Amino acid sequence: MSETDYQALVDGILSDVQAYRGQGTVPNYIPALAQADPNKFGIALVLKDGSTYAAGDADQPFTLQSISYIFTLSLALHHVKGALWNHVGREPSGSPVNSIVQLELEKGKPRNPLISAGAIVVTDQLIGTRGADAAVEELLAFLRERSGEEGIGIDEGLAMSESRAGAFNRSLAHFIAAFGNMLNPVEEVLSAYYRQCSVAMTCRQLARAALFLAFDGVDPRTGDTVTVASRSRRTNALMLTCGHYDVSGDFAFRVGLPGKSAVSGGILAIVPGTGAVVVWSPGLNTAGTSLVGSVALESLAERTGWSVFV
Amino acid sequence: MSETDYQALVDGILSDVQAYRGQGTVPNYIPALAQADPNKFGIALVLKDGSTYAAGDADQPFTLQSISYIFTLSLALHHVKGALWNHVGREPSGSPVNSIVQLELEKGKPRNPLISAGAIVVTDQLIGTRGADAAVEELLAFLRERSGEEGIGIDEGLAMSESRAGAFNRSLAHFIAAFGNMLNPVEEVLSAYYRQCSVAMTCRQLARAALFLAFDGVDPRTGDTVTVASRSRRTNALMLTCGHYDVSGDFAFRVGLPGKSAVSGGILAIVPGTGAVVVWSPGLNTAGTSLVGSVALESLAERTGWSVFV
Amino acid sequence: MSETDYQALVDGILSDVQAYRGQGTVPNYIPALAQADPNKFGIALVLKDGSTYAAGDADQPFTLQSISYIFTLSLALHHVKGALWNHVGREPSGSPVNSIVQLELEKGKPRNPLISAGAIVVTDQLIGTRGADAAVEELLAFLRERSGEEGIGIDEGLAMSESRAGAFNRSLAHFIAAFGNMLNPVEEVLSAYYRQCSVAMTCRQLARAALFLAFDGVDPRTGDTVTVASRSRRTNALMLTCGHYDVSGDFAFRVGLPGKSAVSGGILAIVPGTGAVVVWSPGLNTAGTSLVGSVALESLAERTGWSVFV
Amino acid sequence: MSETDYQALVDGILSDVQAYRGQGTVPNYIPALAQADPNKFGIALVLKDGSTYAAGDADQPFTLQSISYIFTLSLALHHVKGALWNHVGREPSGSPVNSIVQLELEKGKPRNPLISAGAIVVTDQLIGTRGADAAVEELLAFLRERSGEEGIGIDEGLAMSESRAGAFNRSLAHFIAAFGNMLNPVEEVLSAYYRQCSVAMTCRQLARAALFLAFDGVDPRTGDTVTVASRSRRTNALMLTCGHYDVSGDFAFRVGLPGKSAVSGGILAIVPGTGAVVVWSPGLNTAGTSLVGSVALESLAERTGWSVFV
Repeated sequence: MSETDYQALVDGILSDVQAYRGQGTVPNYIPALAQADPNKFGIALVLKDGSTYAAGDADQPFTLQSISYIFTLSLALHHVKGALWNHVGREPSGSPVNSIVQLELEKGKPRNPLISAGAIVVTDQLIGTRGADAAVEELLAFLRERSGEEGIGIDEGLAMSESRAGAFNRSLAHFIAAFGNMLNPVEEVLSAYYRQCSVAMTCRQLARAALFLAFDGVDPRTGDTVTVASRSRRTNALMLTCGHYDVSGDFAFRVGLPGKSAVSGGILAIVPGTGAVVVWSPGLNTAGTSLVGSVALESLAERTGWSVFV
Repeated sequence: MSETDYQALVDGILSDVQAYRGQGTVPNYIPALAQADPNKFGIALVLKDGSTYAAGDADQPFTLQSISYIFTLSLALHHVKGALWNHVGREPSGSPVNSIVQLELEKGKPRNPLISAGAIVVTDQLIGTRGADAAVEELLAFLRERSGEEGIGIDEGLAMSESRAGAFNRSLAHFIAAFGNMLNPVEEVLSAYYRQCSVAMTCRQLARAALFLAFDGVDPRTGDTVTVASRSRRTNALMLTCGHYDVSGDFAFRVGLPGKSAVSGGILAIVPGTGAVVVWSPGLNTAGTSLVGSVALESLAERTGWSVFV
Repeated sequence: MSETDYQALVDGILSDVQAYRGQGTVPNYIPALAQADPNKFGIALVLKDGSTYAAGDADQPFTLQSISYIFTLSLALHHVKGALWNHVGREPSGSPVNSIVQLELEKGKPRNPLISAGAIVVTDQLIGTRGADAAVEELLAFLRERSGEEGIGIDEGLAMSESRAGAFNRSLAHFIAAFGNMLNPVEEVLSAYYRQCSVAMTCRQLARAALFLAFDGVDPRTGDTVTVASRSRRTNALMLTCGHYDVSGDFAFRVGLPGKSAVSGGILAIVPGTGAVVVWSPGLNTAGTSLVGSVALESLAERTGWSVFV
Repeated sequence: MSETDYQALVDGILSDVQAYRGQGTVPNYIPALAQADPNKFGIALVLKDGSTYAAGDADQPFTLQSISYIFTLSLALHHVKGALWNHVGREPSGSPVNSIVQLELEKGKPRNPLISAGAIVVTDQLIGTRGADAAVEELLAFLRERSGEEGIGIDEGLAMSESRAGAFNRSLAHFIAAFGNMLNPVEEVLSAYYRQCSVAMTCRQLARAALFLAFDGVDPRTGDTVTVASRSRRTNALMLTCGHYDVSGDFAFRVGLPGKSAVSGGILAIVPGTGAVVVWSPGLNTAGTSLVGSVALESLAERTGWSVFV
């Protein structure tokens, strides 16, 4: 496709989702998320040559929430390597987002790094002996470098609100600690965890930051080897099998691309060998993923034929 | 790669697995499987042009067992279309092969078509109002046509043994029936189910029969449209997320290809756009998939770089 | 209390439940139960000297359903003694009547003899090597002797209907068999199981038949030692902790007596040292026990102060 | 029995357990419990007239741990009455002591007041709006008055150690809070919870303090109505169905009396109409109850014939 065609693609997707805008429910557990406007929708597509095609509210920042798990996973693997898998599994959980059952059956070892329990463990491992602040700083530096945007920061107020509202995650963390699978004090880990979830980025910035996952770990905009090829592929594998809580199978079935959804309404999708896409719209479907964003990615799959399954 | 290279590839894999041959445990619940020789190993790779590269015991027949689920799913979707998803889900189960818990929580609707409970439901839907024999005949005709081998048949003695030993599957089927999710009498459905599991094929035959899944539903050897493109992709998506019981995530992580394992020691893997591979070796690892076969597919992934994630 | 007082007691209970008669839902899974009249209510109280006080429909037969478990347990313990506890536990299940989860977690050993799965195991043990008919005959002979009524028999039509409708119990039985915890073929065991559930008795007959449980195993009407004292006490203990599915705790809390409820609307309660009571009314509450019968037993507890807890 | 006979009874029990002394395992999660001497054994029996018969280490204090739940339940019922049952159930859990599964299935409402999760909820309700200190003071005043021992106090060091080691209970509390079933901040509730568990009493003191439960809520030593009769009976019912984690059914089966075990090795048993018994020995069996204490209570049941089931 030509440049014109790619712009037509994202514009076409914007037009495909018009009828759905405003649908879905914004999460109500903290004011900052509850006040999000469900009419917002943004999309950004970044290709190998760094060219970016955007439409809608692609330049409005939203918080990464669980999309951040992809990046802390990458950084933690860099630090602790395969030993990470002693602390967290890599199987789909088959459980809803707010389930603790599996964690009990598997004695405090979360099923995978892309559910809350697993992300908490990954964050703990990333902290290691350095303290929460060092881990958060490393993540911010990584995201700034990959997106090329120095201004990326944390919505500290949101981090604080989420932490205060976070009884369930606090329960998960203490549960994990009860099984001896936590290096650092629970509050230390949660302080990093909630800050990583509260990093604010735009569709455009986020798509750029994740681009290396489409090219075997190399950022094609800079030529930097961000991570080794096998680790990049495996991150994609985890996104495909585990990236959307208990609707991961459905996402693979409908969209056919590795992806990660977040409660803020963002969804990241990787098109291996081609590029990275981010959509954002705050209204969620009953599975807790962006309703309009999901429609947009199905439209993308249909319009382009992009799929890892052909 | 040239013809020579492909042959070198399968020969190389054969050599890679030498050190592992004989390892693993053969299942002991029926004599026919218990007597399998764990030293056997076969591999067959079929490419777009129909060329086939094989090594080891690639021409020795083994029974499809749960690999058959892929084909009955394809046939059932042809008959009942999307209505199938009212009866079976498409999410990974996150549960071991012999778990009934999820089935209770989800009121008799199995998680996906690639676990026993789901396959029983798919077989029931495939039978519809035609009787078990018609469904089994349709499956056999399909496999004969796709593989080009008229001699493919059912190991009837094994089917009978498995049925007699099948208390767990019988329990699943009655459980599903208790929730009203079964059209036909349980014994009728199981009679088809155990025969489909007892179809005997070689690595070479099976790889050919599944080739259409690598080419968006078109069999490149004949040009036949076997199934619509979206259905072919979605079958691959299901294999990737659900094809290996509770080690599906690990298979995606290590091998990076859609696949389906069976208790007979066979594993089918699809390389979208390239071809189909079947490995077979009867010794199983603790997860119930072929130990040597798994090593072979990791070797394939490493030697070729084939992966849907790049 | 005098004779007059006891008759006033049961009459008073009959009057207490008037406002509730007709409430509750009759089970609809088989016609015979679905056609029961929810306005019916009977009560019979049998004391140490054999005197019986009855009111309402105390002479109308109903089928024992799971109340029969008490008697097969007693007979099975006589045959296999403590070895029975290798096959079934004695803990409350904490699960609803139609749950199979615990059975999986505990590898085919049902939690206790007073849930369906446990009763199926007890029936299998009672059959032993004698065949289903011998076991059923022994049960009938026991109930006839204890109640002094030669006419007690099986509602064979109901047994057949229940068996045909019994997908869930069939699933349980095959599941148990899958774990090797079944001596006899599933259909043999179920044939005895459904006949024992279909024994028809009146409130008066049933209260007499169970009287030995109130007197340490001795039937005070005849002086016969029906079972050893420790076994009688332990049967009462099982009724108290496990006699009402997942509302056993509530029954102990409200009524304070060992008891067993059945889906036919009967409830047996034992007053240790005093006597046995049976109430019957077909309408069930949401927990699957007789709504009017429960009210009647709470009224009994309040009017008499009878409770094992003081 | 005469005074001499009762003394012979407890002496006889002491002699019955000799062969078992030292068996069992002391819990190792905090030093204070880990250092307990498994050779210790004490027993105290208090009768209606207040006479007390003791043997062994009946005057050595140990911490109440979960036996304290009985008393906070009684106090909380006094304050919030039946509204307590909106926050906690009264069914046996059928789960091991350290399971969180049921709590998820039942949306943060613990199964009963005699498991940790339930006791945390009861403590929260007892605190109400008064603060943790007031609740703890009320409990201490109650235990001092009932036992007639002004010196009863809290092992504050142990409370602190337990709180620090209490990741699992902290997880439970946050989990309950996540479902909105917690009035007070988690740390406030846990501060009261761990202090109530750390009240130190002797067998003799504890048996006296619980005596009212054997006499329909009236303390026969003082004539005080401690609680209404129905509440006393219901507390006994809860002990019988739920007092020993997932071996409550077995305790009812073997001992036949309402009771409550604790991880410190104490077991309280109520003999309705007769008296109260406390045994103590720190070595635990695999179910987490005192090994020697269990043997002692079985010996008591056998020697006296005391049982609520006859």
